[in-house]
Amino acid sequence: MNSKLTFTAVFLVLACVVLRTSAQEKIEQWGRFEITLTDATAQNPFTDVELTAIFTCGEESVTVTGFYDGNNRYKIRFMPQTIGTWEYVTRSNLPGLSGLTGELECVPAAGRNNGMVQVHHTYDFRYADQTPYYPFGTTMYAFLHPDTEREEQTLRTLAQSPFNKIRICLFPKTYEYNNDEPRYFPYREVEGAVPYSGRRAVWDFSRFDPDFFAHLERRIDDLGRLGIECDLILFHPYDEGYFGFDRMSRDNDLRYVKYVVARLSSFRNVWWSLANEWDLLRQKTREDWIEILETVAQSDPYGHLLSIHNGKVYFDYYHPLITHCSIQNESACEEFGRAGLIKDCYRKPVVFDEICYEGNFPNRWGSLSGQEMTYRFWQAALVGTYATHGETFSSDDHIAWTEKGAVLRGEGAPRIGFLRGIIEQTGPLTIIDNWRYPNFSRGSNGQVVIYLGKESPQEWSFMVPTRTRWADGTKVKVQLVDTWNMTITDVADEFVTKRGQYEINDREMKTVQLPGHPYMALMLTPEPAEE
Amino acid sequence: MNSKLTFTAVFLVLACVVLRTSAQEKIEQWGRFEITLTDATAQNPFTDVELTAIFTCGEESVTVTGFYDGNNRYKIRFMPQTIGTWEYVTRSNLPGLSGLTGELECVPAAGRNNGMVQVHHTYDFRYADQTPYYPFGTTMYAFLHPDTEREEQTLRTLAQSPFNKIRICLFPKTYEYNNDEPRYFPYREVEGAVPYSGRRAVWDFSRFDPDFFAHLERRIDDLGRLGIECDLILFHPYDEGYFGFDRMSRDNDLRYVKYVVARLSSFRNVWWSLANEWDLLRQKTREDWIEILETVAQSDPYGHLLSIHNGKVYFDYYHPLITHCSIQNESACEEFGRAGLIKDCYRKPVVFDEICYEGNFPNRWGSLSGQEMTYRFWQAALVGTYATHGETFSSDDHIAWTEKGAVLRGEGAPRIGFLRGIIEQTGPLTIIDNWRYPNFSRGSNGQVVIYLGKESPQEWSFMVPTRTRWADGTKVKVQLVDTWNMTITDVADEFVTKRGQYEINDREMKTVQLPGHPYMALMLTPEPAEE
Repeated sequence: MNSKLTFTAVFLVLACVVLRTSAQEKIEQWGRFEITLTDATAQNPFTDVELTAIFTCGEESVTVTGFYDGNNRYKIRFMPQTIGTWEYVTRSNLPGLSGLTGELECVPAAGRNNGMVQVHHTYDFRYADQTPYYPFGTTMYAFLHPDTEREEQTLRTLAQSPFNKIRICLFPKTYEYNNDEPRYFPYREVEGAVPYSGRRAVWDFSRFDPDFFAHLERRIDDLGRLGIECDLILFHPYDEGYFGFDRMSRDNDLRYVKYVVARLSSFRNVWWSLANEWDLLRQKTREDWIEILETVAQSDPYGHLLSIHNGKVYFDYYHPLITHCSIQNESACEEFGRAGLIKDCYRKPVVFDEICYEGNFPNRWGSLSGQEMTYRFWQAALVGTYATHGETFSSDDHIAWTEKGAVLRGEGAPRIGFLRGIIEQTGPLTIIDNWRYPNFSRGSNGQVVIYLGKESPQEWSFMVPTRTRWADGTKVKVQLVDTWNMTITDVADEFVTKRGQYEINDREMKTVQLPGHPYMALMLTPEPAEE
Repeated sequence: MNSKLTFTAVFLVLACVVLRTSAQEKIEQWGRFEITLTDATAQNPFTDVELTAIFTCGEESVTVTGFYDGNNRYKIRFMPQTIGTWEYVTRSNLPGLSGLTGELECVPAAGRNNGMVQVHHTYDFRYADQTPYYPFGTTMYAFLHPDTEREEQTLRTLAQSPFNKIRICLFPKTYEYNNDEPRYFPYREVEGAVPYSGRRAVWDFSRFDPDFFAHLERRIDDLGRLGIECDLILFHPYDEGYFGFDRMSRDNDLRYVKYVVARLSSFRNVWWSLANEWDLLRQKTREDWIEILETVAQSDPYGHLLSIHNGKVYFDYYHPLITHCSIQNESACEEFGRAGLIKDCYRKPVVFDEICYEGNFPNRWGSLSGQEMTYRFWQAALVGTYATHGETFSSDDHIAWTEKGAVLRGEGAPRIGFLRGIIEQTGPLTIIDNWRYPNFSRGSNGQVVIYLGKESPQEWSFMVPTRTRWADGTKVKVQLVDTWNMTITDVADEFVTKRGQYEINDREMKTVQLPGHPYMALMLTPEPAEE
């Protein structure tokens, strides 16, 4: 195959042209500009060719790396972040690819394009255009690896779902509940080579399969059109050597992440998740992960969100290149007073990217009730962190959403949507007095949210912690939130505050009648005190 | 005063002699060797003189910094950590102090000298001689600042107490419950200068008062003789500018910590606590603290334990120079499943150096019951972290132990001693299955400790999590631990294990009768299964 390619190259060596780009092409801010170049002179275009382009707009300059896309074609992609005219010039060790110039016009974004999601105010996220972003994610490890029909069905389901983030694996899984043969592989096989017993194939780790990546890219754009961020998992342990992508050499690991970042960093809705359950990838050390982390960060000219997900042992989330905590913890969202401890330790946004799944699996991690899933989302949101959903219902005609997608069966998803609506109204929540009142939070808009969790009281005496700092005489409107039945009911009474040492009460000690079932919350809106 | 000193110096300039050290003085390993030199040539001996000594034993070499001790005397102290003959040579910018040589013989330690406490196995501590050390500390901010009689009384109380660590402030406090005028100050006053309104004095921050430090050192040695580690708090916010030690310039801060470390690093029972409630010292930024941290670490040739205590906001405990987490949290030890989250985040030993105090103060932080104080110690120990005690009883004849010492009044202290005895038997505890069974721990000796906390069950069905990994048929001895009444009772029944998916039970489903009151624990000791 190598020799055939070289032979063909002789005839194509002079045919270097720039395709698909015209002078002053208009590209939306945070959109994607792409140059396609052809050149047939490289022995192995994946490994032998260095190709970059410098894009310049006024004093701003961004260097991006190109990549080989098969059939003698090279691509350079660029996501302009500043409106105006950008000029570029290419650089390459192949003379035919070097010194090419052109320009594009970056124009204001429109429609569902708010730019990349970034960290905001230590613990939160927002889009580049300053629109707030609250991650309400779901998990579908093998979204990319079943058949096209199921992918389309999954996208239709997502379009109707409350989810604005999805965790997907780049590499295929071979795992309980998920042993389908993938349709695409990221690498080409070494032709005629016989794999070791128990291995799927002998891969040529120096030659990626562009078809695999074209498919991935199409799906990332599909997600983007739905307003869904793609938290792309670069490595995972659910392979155990069968495909062998969990135990490549360090050089191959680094070549892989560079290729992925070169292809995908211009996709504004991509987040880098270095691994799912990093500590279960036993062939790699913490030092290996630091090198992968640094490589991804250095290769990405835009600074996409970047984290790594744990099994039992947390990674070094305080590392400056890690933008947020992507944490698995089966118990942190199970009781009041826990999730916030992690936020306090790391001083970064915390996303609980695994809190067990809603479903009927026999494993304890795959058998939450819809009530419990919803409750854990509330626990996370209450302290200004975020949970991520997953579903593991298994029946004759259905295999776990979190493995393969298709349709949602659980009761949690709509309630998560209801919670998302509340958080979009209140803004991110912060515990008001975190050592004493773990269920009283304040939104950035000043409203107070009190979550009663699994308690089923018949009434609630008006009270907020003194640290709420509402002046005496403040009038407060109270709403009753039924987090399970998804209703918000105004309480007719008007409440007026009176401060004590640690608590603010109603000055007539008024109470609110409650329905006596669990999963209730109260939303309090203060009105300016009269003069 | 300056000019008088200079005048005297003219007559003493040639009288440089080495005092109090003879050839081959014998010093215990981790003991203290001291050289005294005299020289009267310096204008300001605190700021103008550089003095170090290089101690060498075979291939090992340690450079220590000397300090000015008043009356034209300079001292160099050294803590040998290796047995053998050490030779030294001094270096100074004062010719009379430079190039002096001598030697000492480091001999094996005896008695209560186990060396410095250091971090062991990520989460634990041990002495340099490998003896385990489990911190059971107490707090007495103004130990140094009342009268001598009370200091002596405090030492007698400590000698009878379970505590092996004490947190004390170097600087005096001026604070609610603690406004006594100190007897010693760390600095000399500028004679005749009139302080601003509200200030205690005008200090000459370039001239320390050696009497203050001699007093401190005597007390640190007193504590050492009792086997008590001295967690020395270098800065604190309980001053509000009255003494002004909370708002010195950065240069003065750094000169201060260098002087303290030069004087005290040869004391094996000293730990550096950069601050109490660092985040309430509002004149300093995180960057200031990092510089103080680096200065202390660089000045200390032995690597004493080094941390910083928080108010509401944690410091960067993951910083490589911070040896362990010294954390205030009023709620982390209040419920199962919390304290361990912090340990998992930082991957360092965690000492909860403030969990509220046992007492009758009107503040919520100073009014724990003895039961609650004991309970919190158990919560900390159960997850392999450690709590620190404090007492805030106030009456006509008694002011808070945690402010001024004297006598202990609380009910917690003896129960803390009882717990210490159990941990010394089991070794440090680790939660067996931390996301599911937050009250089941295993000691490093293989025993399982189950803490029932505030629950008052009448009986307990034999059960441990499967991750305990006890084989089927293992015989287990059960002991009932009454953590409040301080009794350990053997259960007559013999239990034999049978494994399920997540739990190991007794194969006959035997139960243990419990007394029906709270604060009980069970201690399980497996015997090797018969062949």
